[in-house]
Parts: sequence; C-alpha cells; structure tokens
Amino acid sequence: VATRTHGRALNPDGLDLEKALAIMEFGHSLDELSPSAAPLDSLELIRASGADVMFENTPVNYNDGQPAISYIETALKNNMQAITANKGTVVHGYSYLQALAAEHGVKFFFESTVMDGVPIFSSFRQLPVMGLTSIWGILNATTNLVLSRLEAGDSFDEAVRYSQEIGIAETDPSGDIDGWDAAVKVAALITVLMDHPFTPDMVERTGIRSITPEMIAKAKAEGKRYKLVAHAWKEGEKIKARVSPELVSSNSILYNINGTTTIVQFESDVLGKLSFIEEDLGPRTTAYGLLADFVNAVRE
Amino acid sequence: VATRTHGRALNPDGLDLEKALAIMEFGHSLDELSPSAAPLDSLELIRASGADVMFENTPVNYNDGQPAISYIETALKNNMQAITANKGTVVHGYSYLQALAAEHGVKFFFESTVMDGVPIFSSFRQLPVMGLTSIWGILNATTNLVLSRLEAGDSFDEAVRYSQEIGIAETDPSGDIDGWDAAVKVAALITVLMDHPFTPDMVERTGIRSITPEMIAKAKAEGKRYKLVAHAWKEGEKIKARVSPELVSSNSILYNINGTTTIVQFESDVLGKLSFIEEDLGPRTTAYGLLADFVNAVRE
Repeated sequence: VATRTHGRALNPDGLDLEKALAIMEFGHSLDELSPSAAPLDSLELIRASGADVMFENTPVNYNDGQPAISYIETALKNNMQAITANKGTVVHGYSYLQALAAEHGVKFFFESTVMDGVPIFSSFRQLPVMGLTSIWGILNATTNLVLSRLEAGDSFDEAVRYSQEIGIAETDPSGDIDGWDAAVKVAALITVLMDHPFTPDMVERTGIRSITPEMIAKAKAEGKRYKLVAHAWKEGEKIKARVSPELVSSNSILYNINGTTTIVQFESDVLGKLSFIEEDLGPRTTAYGLLADFVNAVRE
Repeated sequence: VATRTHGRALNPDGLDLEKALAIMEFGHSLDELSPSAAPLDSLELIRASGADVMFENTPVNYNDGQPAISYIETALKNNMQAITANKGTVVHGYSYLQALAAEHGVKFFFESTVMDGVPIFSSFRQLPVMGLTSIWGILNATTNLVLSRLEAGDSFDEAVRYSQEIGIAETDPSGDIDGWDAAVKVAALITVLMDHPFTPDMVERTGIRSITPEMIAKAKAEGKRYKLVAHAWKEGEKIKARVSPELVSSNSILYNINGTTTIVQFESDVLGKLSFIEEDLGPRTTAYGLLADFVNAVRE
C-alpha cells in the first residue's frame, strides 16, 4: 500500500488490513506495518511487492494521465492485473496499456472510471459486433446535484458546499463545475467503446458557472430544468463530443434525473437506444467497481 | 431448422440460409432444403442434427415451459450450446437446465427473455457478490404502448390494434394485457438473479383491462399516468412479486417511460439502484440478444 499522506507499507507475507484501516482512521502512518522500510519510490514499491494485482487510485490528471499510467505500466510489465478508477489512464493510455496487458496475459480494467460500479465496460465486453453511433447523458453527479440545489433555492456557493459536505464534490470542485469530469468521462467512453482515441481537450466544453439564479427561476417557471449534458456523435468518419448546459423539458427522461443520479445512453446499430441509470452512488459503489473488475480479471 | 407452419429442414452439410429466407418469404416449405426427409419429431431432429448450438424460439408456455424445456434438455444432453428467447424455460426449468449445461460443458443462455438484447443477465454474470433486495419496472412494451395510446385518445380496441399493426402485440394480446408477460419476466429475474425459483402463478397479477378512458382522463388532468408496474421484493426470507397498474406522478422516472420503451431497476447491497432502459425494441433486438448469447457462450 502506498498513499500520498499516510505513508507506505510493504510486507511480502501480507498486510493486516484491519490494523491498516485503524491506522488510517487515527491519522497515523502505514509505515509501521512494514517489517523493513518500504521503498520511497512508488514504481520501486510496485516492483518489489510481488503482488498479483494492483489497484491504482491516484487523483485524475486530465492532461497526460501521469503518474498513474507509469504505475499501471509497471504493474502490467510485472504480470499483475491492473485495476483503476482513474479516468486519466484510459483517455491517455488505453491502447498502449491494453496491448501491454494482453502481452503479459493479464487484464487492464477500469469499470469505476465512469458511473462507478455500474457495469458499462463489462456489459460492452458481452455485446459483440455492436457499432455505437452516439453517446449521451448526465455523467457528472456533482454538477447535477448543484443544479438541483440551485432550483431548490440555494446560492451557487451553498450548493457547492452542500455537495462537498455529503462527500460528492472535491475540495476543489472546479473539475466538476467547469465540465472537465464529464469531458474526461465521455472521452473515455469514446476511446474504449467507439474504439477511437479521444482526449478531454477534444471535447467542446462549457461548465455550469454561467448559470444564474435568474436563469434557473425562468426555466422553472417554464417547467424546464438545466442539465449538464455530455454528447458524442459521428460526423462522417469523425467523432465529435460536447459537454454543455442544456434546458430539458418535462417530457425528457433527463428531467427526472436529479441530485446525485446519473444516466448514460448508447445508440447503436443493433440495440436501438440502451440507457443505464445510477442512483445512490458514493465511495462504496466506486469500491465495488474495483472489486468486480478484480474478480472478472481473475475469472476471465 | 424446425418450424410450426413452414416445414423442417436438416442437412448435415449445412443449409443455404439465403434460400431458406426466400422460401419463408414466399410462404413455401423448408422441407425442400433437406437432401432426405427430415425427422417429423423435433426431439429426433435435434438429436440427428449434429449441431454445435440450438436456438430455441417456440411460443412461451406460462404453465410448464413445455415443449421448449424438452428441446433444450435434448440439445444440452447432446453437448450443444442452448440459446433461447423463451421465458417459460427459465421460470420452469432454470436450475435443472443450468446444472445439465454445466455437466455437459456447454451454456444455457436466455438474454432475450427479458428486454430483448439489453445485457441484463450477462451484466449480472459480471457483478460478483451482489445481493439483490428488489426489482422494479415496466417490463411489458405492449401494455405501455396501449396506455400511451389511450392517453392520446385511442379506444382500448384501437390501441391494441395499433400495437398489433406495428408488430409489438401478439394476435392474441391477452398474455400482455392481463399481465402474464410482465409476470413471467419478473419471475425469470427473481429465479436467476435472486437465485430463488419463482413461477408466474406466484406473482400477484392485475392487468390493464380495468383501466377506463375516464380513469386515464382523470389521471391526465392531475398530471399523472397509469403504468403497468412489476415489483419483486424481500419479506424476511420470502420473496414476493406483484404486477399491477399504478398511478405515477411527473417526478417519477417511470412518467417518461412511454410507448414501447421499457425499464427495469435493481436495488442491491453493493450498487444502490441500477436501472436499464430500452428504446426502439423489436424482432431485431431480440435476434441480437440471441446472437450475443451465442458469441458469449462460445467465448466463455
């Protein structure tokens, strides 16, 4: 185990997880769990671990996916299954890491990068000969919650603070508010499911900072709601993507996707329109996605 | 190939599918495709076929799943993959056929029995250690379409006729209208995903015949809609299920599930609430589910 602020522990005979959790809870360092000092360098720790699987969960880097990609690369090269919830590794490293995993007879799985444990990537592994033509949805829970709170009368700052209090928004919520999180998610879906490398900077992106209380009130009076909607679609051979606030009317399925609920819809040549909705998400559902990836990686 | 009204064909060297489709289109008999007379008995035809896979698509039998179960049993005993869209085989034969398939090293797959090719059963095969606590949704497209047409002003007969014209409802639509189709689907979901044998007669069932134009008009005036909703839930160690018309208000996700669109929601200990929505369904999406089952059966 290597953490940013709680130390690092390495024991080839295994770690006492109950003890590790207690140490974390009391804010102590995991260092004391190692029989001898663990390597300070994370790549070296991965190599020295002798593990069968690595779970990679460092914060997302929208620009180049590092250092997470180098961690996963190192794990795969040492024949470990590599499981991550880190979207940056998918949009910046998918084809390379996928090929590397195949070469080493292990898996690079990342279910929790989009809608936590909702089985999107694993479902598509079971949907042969499907040609996706478009992707559409509300992929970011924080902005959807903020918009719902604004409609209920909160100020923008109050709505953001509430989202932070319930553990949905980051300390710095700009990744959500400015649309980066939705952009990296739609880019990950395009990269993997449309088999077309796509990075977040290729997504035409507008966040929700420009939505004023007056706009919300006017929409409400008209029976409409603002939603931060992500789209990806084909234009000839090209794929385009956009994240932007949209006014949706009460006859749209999106109208009742409120608070922390999220939705994604896939249009294809074989299944018409297929949507997934997730409610009641949180760290627990992200953790479940990582666990499911691990079980599926070992089983396949 | 064995059909009810278009004859049967058996050729160990393979059948000319283009020719078979043309024969069907012109209403002729498939018999002429066989080099010698094919067995008149379907079980004998399955045994004599030497096939690697059988696709079973006879009409559903709500009472005991026959004769489909005997066809699948025969296929599995002859080491064929068995793929079906027949709900009766799941609610009346799941645990027996599943064990038989495992014994013979082949698969018994049935994705198209619920929401066509939507990857429900295949998704759950990738969701380890999940404990389902409830299932909920609009599982029958015909009744949902009929209710939408009633709201638009059709009479009951007009609405049913329209559903038949677009190929959604059967010639005898009573299986849909009286809630049997939704009941057998929720029973199939309980049987497989909650690992609890459940037959359609155990579902408390009310269809939509009692919904009058006056009731529809009153609901509409109140901003509500009738939906035929299926539920399954735990009561202690027991599982209960119900299919009945419910009034849903405009803040329910169900409110915007109209026409031939269907939805199912699963509540579990690990993923909160997870929903699947299917739009634009038809014979093509059912066929896709059968194809996907076949590819997954061979690949696993």
